[in-house]
Amino acid sequence: MTRYRAVLEYDGTDFLGFQRQAQGRTVQGEVEVSLRRMGWVGKTIWGAGRTDTGVHAAGQVIAFDLEWTHGEPALLRALNANLSADVSAQSVAGCAPEFHPRYDAKARRYRYTVYNAPVRSALTARCAWHLASPLDLPEMQRAADRLRGTHNFATFGTDPDDGRNTVRTVSVAEWSQAGASVYFDIQAEAFLYRMVRSIVGTLKQVGTGELTLAAFERIFSARNRVQCPPLAPPHGLCLMEVVYEAT
Amino acid sequence: MTRYRAVLEYDGTDFLGFQRQAQGRTVQGEVEVSLRRMGWVGKTIWGAGRTDTGVHAAGQVIAFDLEWTHGEPALLRALNANLSADVSAQSVAGCAPEFHPRYDAKARRYRYTVYNAPVRSALTARCAWHLASPLDLPEMQRAADRLRGTHNFATFGTDPDDGRNTVRTVSVAEWSQAGASVYFDIQAEAFLYRMVRSIVGTLKQVGTGELTLAAFERIFSARNRVQCPPLAPPHGLCLMEVVYEAT
Repeated sequence: MTRYRAVLEYDGTDFLGFQRQAQGRTVQGEVEVSLRRMGWVGKTIWGAGRTDTGVHAAGQVIAFDLEWTHGEPALLRALNANLSADVSAQSVAGCAPEFHPRYDAKARRYRYTVYNAPVRSALTARCAWHLASPLDLPEMQRAADRLRGTHNFATFGTDPDDGRNTVRTVSVAEWSQAGASVYFDIQAEAFLYRMVRSIVGTLKQVGTGELTLAAFERIFSARNRVQCPPLAPPHGLCLMEVVYEAT
Repeated sequence: MTRYRAVLEYDGTDFLGFQRQAQGRTVQGEVEVSLRRMGWVGKTIWGAGRTDTGVHAAGQVIAFDLEWTHGEPALLRALNANLSADVSAQSVAGCAPEFHPRYDAKARRYRYTVYNAPVRSALTARCAWHLASPLDLPEMQRAADRLRGTHNFATFGTDPDDGRNTVRTVSVAEWSQAGASVYFDIQAEAFLYRMVRSIVGTLKQVGTGELTLAAFERIFSARNRVQCPPLAPPHGLCLMEVVYEAT
C-alpha cells in the first residue's frame, strides 16, 4: 500500500462542491468512484480544500492509499480514463505515508475572475462573474493592499473548524486585467469559510464606488460578519494552487 | 418594422448546432423563443453560418425583423435577459431592410483550439481538442501555408448548397501558441461543409508526423473527400467573426 498525492483540475459548475454529500454529485465522490474501479478499497480520500458548490480548481491536492503495481504514469492514465470530462488529474506521485493535503499545506492560492463588460459573455459564463459597471481597479488595489499581512478577518468569514480563530495571514492580494477579464489573486496560509468571495464582493463595491476606501476600512476593522457586503458568486472562484514544503 | 443585425456568442456544448431542428435544442430555436417573448412575430431569423453540433461562436451574425419602440440599448438588454446563460447577444443595431447575414458576408473567420499537453484538462475540455502528442508547429504552418489563396478544397469538404463548387479562397491560415493552447486561425470568403475540421484533422497528422508534407500535398491535390484523414472534433471550433462591407 502506497500513499499517493494527486493534483486535480475541475470545472465546478456541475458539482455540489468538493466534499462528499449524502446526495448529489461531488468531486470527492467522483474521484472515489473512479478509484474504486481501479481497486481502491479505502474509506475516504483527503483533499486540501473543501471548495463550495460551483467553485473550480486548477490545483486542488488530494491524497489516497492504493495498492498499485503498474507504475505512476499508468496510474495517471487510469485515473483520467475513469474520471468524467469535468475532472482531471494533472499529476500523481507516491508521497510520505503520513502526508495529509490539508494539514500539511503551507499556503493556498485562489484566483477570482470577473468579466467586466457592458454585455454578458456566453463563453465565459461558467468561470467568471459578469459585472457591467466600470471598475476602478487602482482603488480596488488600494483596498486589497490593506488585506496583506496578519489580520483578524472576522468580517470576511468564519473559522471552518469552529475554533473561533479568525486571524489569518495574507501574502498576496493583487488585481490584474487582460481585456475584459479582471483577476484577483489572493494567497494565504489558510482561509476562513467563504473568505475570498466575501472579500471580492466587498472590493467590487469599492470598484463601483458603492464603498469609499474609508468605508471599506470601517467594515474590515469592524470584525463583524454582519457588516460584510454580499458574497461574490461561486462560479468566478478557482483554487489555483496548494503550496507545501519542498520534500 | 425594422431589420436588426445582432452579433451572438454561444457555448455550443449543449446545442444541436445553430439551425433549428424538429427536435432538440438549437441556437436558432433559443433565439426565436426569446424574440417571441419580446413581441417578434416573424417566421424565422437568419444566420450567417450554420455551425454544427458542439461548435461555438464568438461572432455569429443574425438578422430579424422586429417592431420595437424602446431603443437599441433596451433591445440588447431584453435579448440578453431572455436568452439562457450559454448564448449572449454582444450587440444589436438596425440595418438595411434587405441585409442578409449569410448572403452579404464577405468573409468568415474561425479559430480552432487545441490543448496540447500530456494530460487532459478539465477546465478547457468544452472548448479545446486535447492532443497528448507533441506537435511540430512549424511543419503544420508549412502545410497551412499551402492552403492560402484560391484552390479546389474538395478533399476537405462538400459544397453546402450542393452546387458542386468546391473552389474557395483562403486569406488567413495561421497557427499560434500560448502555453499549452495551440490555435489555428483561418479566414475565407466562404467555407465548404466541415472544411475547417477536415483541415485541422489533417494538419494534426502533419504535426504528429503521421503525414509528411509531401503526403499532405498529395491528399490536398487529390480533391477527393475519401482521402481526408478523420475530422477534428467539433468542440475545438469557434466562429470568431463574419466580415461585411463597411456600411
